[in-house]
Amino acid sequence: MMPLDLPLLHARLAASVPLVQCITNTVVQQFSANVLLAAGAAPAMIDHEADSAQFAAMADALLINLGTASNHQLLAADAAISVATEIGKPWVLDPVSVGVVDFRSIKIRQAAASRPTVVRGNASEVAALAGAGAGGRGVDSTDAVDAVLPAAIRLAQATGGVVAVSGARDAVVAVHGAQVQIARIGGGHALMPKVVGTGCALGSLVAAYLAAGREPGTARLAGDFAATVAAHAHFALAGLAAGAQAAGPGSFQVAFIDALHALTSADLARADVQLETRAL
Amino acid sequence: MMPLDLPLLHARLAASVPLVQCITNTVVQQFSANVLLAAGAAPAMIDHEADSAQFAAMADALLINLGTASNHQLLAADAAISVATEIGKPWVLDPVSVGVVDFRSIKIRQAAASRPTVVRGNASEVAALAGAGAGGRGVDSTDAVDAVLPAAIRLAQATGGVVAVSGARDAVVAVHGAQVQIARIGGGHALMPKVVGTGCALGSLVAAYLAAGREPGTARLAGDFAATVAAHAHFALAGLAAGAQAAGPGSFQVAFIDALHALTSADLARADVQLETRAL
Amino acid sequence: MMPLDLPLLHARLAASVPLVQCITNTVVQQFSANVLLAAGAAPAMIDHEADSAQFAAMADALLINLGTASNHQLLAADAAISVATEIGKPWVLDPVSVGVVDFRSIKIRQAAASRPTVVRGNASEVAALAGAGAGGRGVDSTDAVDAVLPAAIRLAQATGGVVAVSGARDAVVAVHGAQVQIARIGGGHALMPKVVGTGCALGSLVAAYLAAGREPGTARLAGDFAATVAAHAHFALAGLAAGAQAAGPGSFQVAFIDALHALTSADLARADVQLETRAL
Repeated sequence: MMPLDLPLLHARLAASVPLVQCITNTVVQQFSANVLLAAGAAPAMIDHEADSAQFAAMADALLINLGTASNHQLLAADAAISVATEIGKPWVLDPVSVGVVDFRSIKIRQAAASRPTVVRGNASEVAALAGAGAGGRGVDSTDAVDAVLPAAIRLAQATGGVVAVSGARDAVVAVHGAQVQIARIGGGHALMPKVVGTGCALGSLVAAYLAAGREPGTARLAGDFAATVAAHAHFALAGLAAGAQAAGPGSFQVAFIDALHALTSADLARADVQLETRAL
Repeated sequence: MMPLDLPLLHARLAASVPLVQCITNTVVQQFSANVLLAAGAAPAMIDHEADSAQFAAMADALLINLGTASNHQLLAADAAISVATEIGKPWVLDPVSVGVVDFRSIKIRQAAASRPTVVRGNASEVAALAGAGAGGRGVDSTDAVDAVLPAAIRLAQATGGVVAVSGARDAVVAVHGAQVQIARIGGGHALMPKVVGTGCALGSLVAAYLAAGREPGTARLAGDFAATVAAHAHFALAGLAAGAQAAGPGSFQVAFIDALHALTSADLARADVQLETRAL
Repeated sequence: MMPLDLPLLHARLAASVPLVQCITNTVVQQFSANVLLAAGAAPAMIDHEADSAQFAAMADALLINLGTASNHQLLAADAAISVATEIGKPWVLDPVSVGVVDFRSIKIRQAAASRPTVVRGNASEVAALAGAGAGGRGVDSTDAVDAVLPAAIRLAQATGGVVAVSGARDAVVAVHGAQVQIARIGGGHALMPKVVGTGCALGSLVAAYLAAGREPGTARLAGDFAATVAAHAHFALAGLAAGAQAAGPGSFQVAFIDALHALTSADLARADVQLETRAL
């Protein structure tokens, strides 16, 4: 498999400042917006059902995270997904809390049925969405990422898009016909799961990279895969840098935003990314 | 009165990582979640009326804070309280802004009528909920805590649970028959009320300690009292540590999260806790 | 034009701790509250339609920002604006995202028709609200502020109040009969637009200064103008101080809150404020 040009993707993000519509949970709106700004994108948390479709047509990418969705935000999400799907705009589904409670799970499964460009979740969420687990409440171990790879691959087949599993060593998966493309991304830090919203914010950064990575004339799925890996690499490198100077989760969060901002395109070449292609 | 084993309660919290459902105001959701994560618990801000009861049955404890509650969040709170009450799960009511505006006050009084395991508020809120004051908008002095002790005791009689009053020197109160148990907790820092949500986040930490402190075979009210004191002690020690290195409320907030995380079970033995038993 | 006594306005703010009702978007609620607390005011995010009017009558000032307004928050805003208008309480409209999406724009224009004491936005928002532009999504340059001055003046004529345009060098405008009063405020830092909610939080600080600046016997518009300039000066000085020690947007945000808190009344005399009076 060809190595991915992560520095180029970062440079494109920096040059294009993609506008990301985030319909996301209220716990992480501020952090997600600050992550996008620090990393070089522009956030917009427009989530009213009357504005949502109109804005989805203008934004460069869309993130859907129904973690605290009210009925109004659910309507806004439906409308935005419809627009993104119709005009082929990249969108990310973060299936937070799928498999934990029934109403939320139904809504998330409905969203997943619209075939998101990328699904990004932790191991238990990906397992639950793929129908292989009961969802989860917490932090994933490396083993957990390995354990759900078959479920992630099945989910990628079902959506036709990319599936990303966050953990100590993240996995990004795409299925091209009879071949499975897998990237494993190392880095980050043990304090990361101690800061609320790191996973959710990563989902919004994936959306930003998807917008930056789209180019006429390149294969859609391969480009989306590379963009998803780039977002994870950017995040993991920033986590590594922040961890080196943090005294706890409070200072980690501050240093992490600084590091997302400080990273240069050249730095992305240092990311710990392992690529693999398997037969399905 | 027997001294409380705060290190043991901290160790139980760390070992059990209690899952706390927070139906809380949107201003403090992120901070409350980060406080819970830093202190060793797991937050879940599930507040949709369709998911709320189901999740309340799974969570280890529940926090209700109606500070910015929409009608939907009010329904979710009702449902979660019903479940918690029915199955005897510990829950905390933070009566923020009771006595200030009528609609909110009615809803908070209705919640209080369901007999929360712990009511945690500032002096004016506790006074208002006990029917002895007009509510308040701001910061309490030590005097204020002393002044509302009779109201807190009356409220504790009415709910049958614990009542905690936050101030420069916090008070935790429980009524056992004809005896009143009072703990006074010192520590914290003058910058604490300059960071939004410190009181609200303390409420969620009380819920976490309640879950960690419950044990078959021990007296319920005594255990809940000890757990409430432990949460306040953990908070106060972290405030003290953060204040020692903060240059203002911004750096205080960061240092406070770090300190909540850094405190060990042994550190809890150093808490400034004064116990007293009085005749009612 | 008489020089403005910014230290006096800061001293009044510190002495009166004005209570500011913020009906604002959920992305910036926490940051806005922390900005108000650090600067010496008291925030209250009461935004339920059933409490809103009652609380508006008690609060010292009101901020309206409909950035993520649900239908319920829109009703709350309507009610609070009606009360503020009727009893002559100062209120600020932050027209965030006006001109970008239709539904939101209609609601913001309706709010503007109630003649806010101050409108505070970035260049594209002020242009859109004045009917001179299409709204915007992002950061303004100094040029942008200059370019929209005519629109700001037109808007100030229409509302009869103050209009403030945020940018690298902020502008504050008021029209007194045939004369236009303009203040330009320098300071701040390039990292400021990389922290979500700085503009929104500035709007809430303007509301706090308006409350502190109102005095029986002084000319209303001149006093509101001075108060608006003072809020911008306080903000700009804090931005300058924070920028001098920040390593990125994360540490900038922390240092900014510390600096808002550390600034003394005397410091306000060092603000870079340029006053000008022009014929209309």
